[in-house]
Amino acid sequence: MSATTRRHLQPAQQDDPYLKAYLSGYADGEGCFCVSFSRSTRHRFGCEIRPSFSVSQNVDRSQVLELFRSTLGCGTIRPDRSDQTLKYETRSVSDLATKVLPLFAQHPLRSSKQRDLEKFAAIVQLMHRSKHLQPDGFARIVELSLEINSGGAKRFPRRAIVPRQMNA
Amino acid sequence: MSATTRRHLQPAQQDDPYLKAYLSGYADGEGCFCVSFSRSTRHRFGCEIRPSFSVSQNVDRSQVLELFRSTLGCGTIRPDRSDQTLKYETRSVSDLATKVLPLFAQHPLRSSKQRDLEKFAAIVQLMHRSKHLQPDGFARIVELSLEINSGGAKRFPRRAIVPRQMNA
Repeated sequence: MSATTRRHLQPAQQDDPYLKAYLSGYADGEGCFCVSFSRSTRHRFGCEIRPSFSVSQNVDRSQVLELFRSTLGCGTIRPDRSDQTLKYETRSVSDLATKVLPLFAQHPLRSSKQRDLEKFAAIVQLMHRSKHLQPDGFARIVELSLEINSGGAKRFPRRAIVPRQMNA
Repeated sequence: MSATTRRHLQPAQQDDPYLKAYLSGYADGEGCFCVSFSRSTRHRFGCEIRPSFSVSQNVDRSQVLELFRSTLGCGTIRPDRSDQTLKYETRSVSDLATKVLPLFAQHPLRSSKQRDLEKFAAIVQLMHRSKHLQPDGFARIVELSLEINSGGAKRFPRRAIVPRQMNA
């Protein structure tokens, strides 16, 4: 397999028909499609909505993070403050809508994580159309977010967001 | 993306050209190419060599484990005793040589884990040709195994295997 050793040490070939399918598989295992909320007086309804796609990996196996960045043409790679890994991350709603989501539309996840991805995609598309600036769009985003990443710790309960914001 | 939701809940299509590339990406993140050694009076040189390919996943996202089993046509899925996950695993040297390795020869890993996979493949191929029953083949397998999975805990130091077995 010496030829394949050289292959992964070289930049990805743009004409590699299997690269995006491989990245979809990698993301199904290691990727995170997250939506976080934070209080903000600068944002409509007093709340900033931040969708992100990220993949973390140990420094010595970070080649795949470079493949995500070069293939998607967006995002950054930086040390993860929480541990000794590197994290590839895209937060730009425009990049998520026009670069990240199309890869996964072409090569969907094959585990139940696909269901989360579909809700994430709906949120990104609502934000890309500026629907988060309208009460019903904002409420729909909060509702969708309740259905994904439901296992993680939240700084504040999302169910508490809507009534307060809708009354603001 | 409703069509893609249905897709991952259905059996994999045999004519899906991207499935193996996806599984390669998934294995690059989540797969383990391991070689373990255990003392055994029933085996040549007093030592059993057990190569295995495995992928673990939470029960609620175990669809991909079924994809590995159906695509490779070998291996088992069972609860992992160490935690609350399911583990797909192939231990048969014949299946590893004739079913598992060909997938990764066609779709190599793209991280530095590929280097470990190449050493794992060399070990499997030596065993498939029964070279592990000869002193120099056995010694070569131990040597290759020292270069992979070097971070994990070992029940006994591998460097201690060769001198003892070669003197046996």
